[in-house]
Amino acid sequence: MTEKKKTTIVLFSGDYDKAMAAYIIANGAAAYDHEVTIFHTFWGLNALRKDEVVTVKKGFMEKMFGKMMPRGAENLGLSKMHFAGFGPKMIKGVMKKHNALPLYQLVEMAQEQEVKLVACTMTMDLLGLQKEELLDGIDYAGVAAYLADAEKGNVNLFI
Amino acid sequence: MTEKKKTTIVLFSGDYDKAMAAYIIANGAAAYDHEVTIFHTFWGLNALRKDEVVTVKKGFMEKMFGKMMPRGAENLGLSKMHFAGFGPKMIKGVMKKHNALPLYQLVEMAQEQEVKLVACTMTMDLLGLQKEELLDGIDYAGVAAYLADAEKGNVNLFI
Amino acid sequence: MTEKKKTTIVLFSGDYDKAMAAYIIANGAAAYDHEVTIFHTFWGLNALRKDEVVTVKKGFMEKMFGKMMPRGAENLGLSKMHFAGFGPKMIKGVMKKHNALPLYQLVEMAQEQEVKLVACTMTMDLLGLQKEELLDGIDYAGVAAYLADAEKGNVNLFI
Repeated sequence: MTEKKKTTIVLFSGDYDKAMAAYIIANGAAAYDHEVTIFHTFWGLNALRKDEVVTVKKGFMEKMFGKMMPRGAENLGLSKMHFAGFGPKMIKGVMKKHNALPLYQLVEMAQEQEVKLVACTMTMDLLGLQKEELLDGIDYAGVAAYLADAEKGNVNLFI
Repeated sequence: MTEKKKTTIVLFSGDYDKAMAAYIIANGAAAYDHEVTIFHTFWGLNALRKDEVVTVKKGFMEKMFGKMMPRGAENLGLSKMHFAGFGPKMIKGVMKKHNALPLYQLVEMAQEQEVKLVACTMTMDLLGLQKEELLDGIDYAGVAAYLADAEKGNVNLFI
Repeated sequence: MTEKKKTTIVLFSGDYDKAMAAYIIANGAAAYDHEVTIFHTFWGLNALRKDEVVTVKKGFMEKMFGKMMPRGAENLGLSKMHFAGFGPKMIKGVMKKHNALPLYQLVEMAQEQEVKLVACTMTMDLLGLQKEELLDGIDYAGVAAYLADAEKGNVNLFI
């Protein structure tokens, strides 16, 4: 019996296009029967936020971060050519035209394919994000758990 | 007989400095006898655009992207310190002074060293880029082909 | 006797948050007994700059780069939500509150844990940075040395 191949992705970026790239690679790898982990840290956590407002108790700076950061996959900006929101609209326009899946559906597909979606607890703490604000069915861990996966990984990427 | 070491790079970024880093690592790895693949996706495709205008039929949004994105390696911007075009000029100035190769020559060298340059067909479609607009002698493939290379890779990077 | 696991990180970015992520992963890997190398290239070199002014002889453009680039770990900006310097202050505020180490202490910890900190000589030359301007006790090398480490690496990241 051969062991399964492993792919791990650190999703640090909160850009729509970079998150798309991460999820396309992750879904591809899962389809090719890899064990896949996406470790969401810093701004990458925003891809896991629920898009509704969740009322939780927070300190002042944590509230500020919460307000300033995008709420959920479809509200992320682009890494390039943002053009005050015009760029993301264009990308979503051409994606629709070419039947490409929007990010939130790529996230759903990843969950269906049992990609392990992990939220980095240290940066959740730092940015004041609480479990209630993030998608259901995800894991919570720190850098040690990431490294344990990555050191056995065939493909390890930082996005 | 030992198998060749393998290096794969996903070039997602369309920044001049990041593309330089990608091609310097790729050329270095090829010189050390690695099999090297650069998989160009999203803005990274712009490094493979011909610098002349190529007339192809496109829809409206595809035309817009085509006009807004830089045409070829030497027209990319910097990831930092762009300063309205002053940064790229400075970098190119010091590169010339220190006899460092400009990006388009790093791309040529990669082709001479048989680095496999791949354009991601899914994002070409999305951004409306057509084969006629890209350099000759490159490959076209999707995420499955990338993963097949990367899962055997010794060094896999996302840039 | 089993060989030590190896982690290599190319730190290309000069963003405070990305450098933090790099050093947190590096320190984590060192704690789990990996041999760890951080190869600082392009803007990533700024994380290794001393924070005082060091007088060295430079050409005009090298002087300009020297002045425009941040001097040392604590003067780097953020990759997102910079908000004219407000973002970095907020991040440092919440880091203090949550007892997270600031970057310069993560760098010190890495040195104590014998993480190999390497400055890329080619980009030092390009940006006009001289050894006197960088931290003591670091290594100097080029892409060949990086590749020699990376091709044996279990975890290789480009940040």
